[in-house]
Amino acid sequence: MNVELLFLVLDYSGVALFAYSGGMLAARKQLDPFGAAILGAVTGMGGGTLRDVLLGQLPVYWVDAPEYLWLALIGALVGYYTSPWAQSLATRRAALAWADAVGMAVFCVLGAKAGLAAGSHWSIAMLTGIMSAAFGGLLRDIIVNDVPLVLRADIYGLAAMAGAGAYVLAIAMNVGTGTAAVGAALLAFIIRGCAIQFNWTLPPLGKVG
Amino acid sequence: MNVELLFLVLDYSGVALFAYSGGMLAARKQLDPFGAAILGAVTGMGGGTLRDVLLGQLPVYWVDAPEYLWLALIGALVGYYTSPWAQSLATRRAALAWADAVGMAVFCVLGAKAGLAAGSHWSIAMLTGIMSAAFGGLLRDIIVNDVPLVLRADIYGLAAMAGAGAYVLAIAMNVGTGTAAVGAALLAFIIRGCAIQFNWTLPPLGKVG
Amino acid sequence: MNVELLFLVLDYSGVALFAYSGGMLAARKQLDPFGAAILGAVTGMGGGTLRDVLLGQLPVYWVDAPEYLWLALIGALVGYYTSPWAQSLATRRAALAWADAVGMAVFCVLGAKAGLAAGSHWSIAMLTGIMSAAFGGLLRDIIVNDVPLVLRADIYGLAAMAGAGAYVLAIAMNVGTGTAAVGAALLAFIIRGCAIQFNWTLPPLGKVG
Repeated sequence: MNVELLFLVLDYSGVALFAYSGGMLAARKQLDPFGAAILGAVTGMGGGTLRDVLLGQLPVYWVDAPEYLWLALIGALVGYYTSPWAQSLATRRAALAWADAVGMAVFCVLGAKAGLAAGSHWSIAMLTGIMSAAFGGLLRDIIVNDVPLVLRADIYGLAAMAGAGAYVLAIAMNVGTGTAAVGAALLAFIIRGCAIQFNWTLPPLGKVG
Repeated sequence: MNVELLFLVLDYSGVALFAYSGGMLAARKQLDPFGAAILGAVTGMGGGTLRDVLLGQLPVYWVDAPEYLWLALIGALVGYYTSPWAQSLATRRAALAWADAVGMAVFCVLGAKAGLAAGSHWSIAMLTGIMSAAFGGLLRDIIVNDVPLVLRADIYGLAAMAGAGAYVLAIAMNVGTGTAAVGAALLAFIIRGCAIQFNWTLPPLGKVG
Repeated sequence: MNVELLFLVLDYSGVALFAYSGGMLAARKQLDPFGAAILGAVTGMGGGTLRDVLLGQLPVYWVDAPEYLWLALIGALVGYYTSPWAQSLATRRAALAWADAVGMAVFCVLGAKAGLAAGSHWSIAMLTGIMSAAFGGLLRDIIVNDVPLVLRADIYGLAAMAGAGAYVLAIAMNVGTGTAAVGAALLAFIIRGCAIQFNWTLPPLGKVG
């Protein structure tokens, strides 16, 4: 598979699934369809937008590529209108968490790749990876007044860090970008997936009252 | 009337009235005058700032035009100090909603105009319009911990979308920019005004528990 | 002391102490260590990042200077893990407020300096100063769903404004940048410190129900 095409597919998948998670949350919070579209677009396109702004790659990527907006809107409305089909609140929470996990896994790699392409230090490339992965969902949760998923105790930042770190390490070891990206994204997804499935958590500080 | 002057008047009005809405909200939330000034500046200048950052037009517009800051501060403090004069909570809520409606109507057009001027696709110009219109108020509400007005069910995003869309369409049909801007802003204001006045809402998803 | 070194020390101190305040807040809110790292990095680096974006100095400062990230992470984790040692909630609140006060005092000056360096009007330089001082803490508090410290009634914006204003005024009067920076930062710190120590407040609007 062509490497550029692979990255495009990853990018589109991340945007659409993050937007889907925004649409689902909009349904749970009783927003109207326009609120769902806005929340989905912010979730799907927020991480890459922040990445481009911080690295100075302006205008941001979607200004000359309207298909990202359309993808995000479609993802958001699918999430919004299919949400009532779920049989229980637990099913809906799980669907949101899994869609979010795919978006996170994809964007931690794409963000790290953009950081390296800008000539940054490996630690900065990891940071742009983690920020790309976390920022869309952070905005989504702040806007509807939840404490962000990335900050609650369920191995989110750690998974994004592992994915971004694995990508940076693989590139340093001259692994091909396509292989490195798929492997690192899978690693992030598996860590986050295990955390969702088996309720893995990092110990918070129990002693602080 | 000179078209450039017209756009300047629209821009100033939007900044001042959005800032006024921020000042009123600061009074309702019992912030001190400096909190009101900050909230007003963020509300009045937030939308245009985001627009400039995303389109890569940096430094942002107010860095070389301090009169925007002064206008926003005056608007915020007028809103803050006149707020106690209102006879009831309902009057204050209405004053905030109407000032916000003018700001929204003006900025959805100015944002779409900036998107077109940057050579973007019409759907992206609509997005920059909607974002310019919504972002100041979004920040205002997030900062004081309210669920944003734009996301609550009362036809806000729809009005901004109609205004931005009408402007883009009118330009595509070779209508003069001044006429297009005034007409599109009026359309957005009338839709939003009817929603305020007659409590128009879009149906949310009733079935999601 | 070399002036450039002085500014570097101020910058590093501000980043580390703001990050420390983020780490302490993360402990109080029962976040996991990765949440603390994210909250610390956002608090420590948020203000300078906004300043660079608005002034168009991209990529932002830390992209080519990874030591800021490391400093922020160290500050955040120190704040997070030392937090349980404090003997009472009051001690912890005070430690957070004082660390935040140092960060604010430093960044209101560094932000104003960056605004002047970009050739801006003195009022805009004051604004970039206030925003650099306030934005990191604003993000910190929004993310964990508190009403931001800068907006609660305890002389925060006023102190930042005094510091930024004193620096701008001193530069206009041809005081050396090092002397102006230290004096202005001390002024801001003293005003804010008195507000913390003696519970100074500006009168909010008592009449608004």
